[in-house]
Amino acid sequence: MPVVVATIKVKSGQGAEFEAAAKELEAAVNANEEGCSLYRLCKGDEADTYVFVEQYRDAAAVEAHRASDHFKTLGRKMGAFMDGPPSILRLQEV
Amino acid sequence: MPVVVATIKVKSGQGAEFEAAAKELEAAVNANEEGCSLYRLCKGDEADTYVFVEQYRDAAAVEAHRASDHFKTLGRKMGAFMDGPPSILRLQEV
Repeated sequence: MPVVVATIKVKSGQGAEFEAAAKELEAAVNANEEGCSLYRLCKGDEADTYVFVEQYRDAAAVEAHRASDHFKTLGRKMGAFMDGPPSILRLQEV
Repeated sequence: MPVVVATIKVKSGQGAEFEAAAKELEAAVNANEEGCSLYRLCKGDEADTYVFVEQYRDAAAVEAHRASDHFKTLGRKMGAFMDGPPSILRLQEV
């Protein structure tokens, strides 16, 4: 199963706005993508940094996610608050 | 829910031995730790590098994991093949 760890830097002071859009995306993914078994917005100790931890049934489910309207729409919405592109770690389960 | 992303560098050429011990730990965690909802050994494109992606019900479940005999025993077993300590990213769901 494909696993993705996406690290996102947010513009200083815009965490709350980012979180609102990101949680909207999290809800839309969990409600609409049966091929996605885990899609969680997380935060660690690092300021202005968020991490999406994601798990998919297969590559097709990853593609369906990326092609979905909610990912495109809410991805743009989140983008307004982001400080550069996300750092994407693409993993496969051993 | 606590989420952990643990990145592990393995001594060159010792991936197979590491994987065997790590998969043993993965199985033991999934069989014995009802507070752990995800414990997956993953691999990305980077050579000699593995990532455990983990999700727990709460902090107590994380502590129970770390205190477990299987984690201690198999952690030592994996350690023999590791090239330094793991890099642990401790996250909380937003």
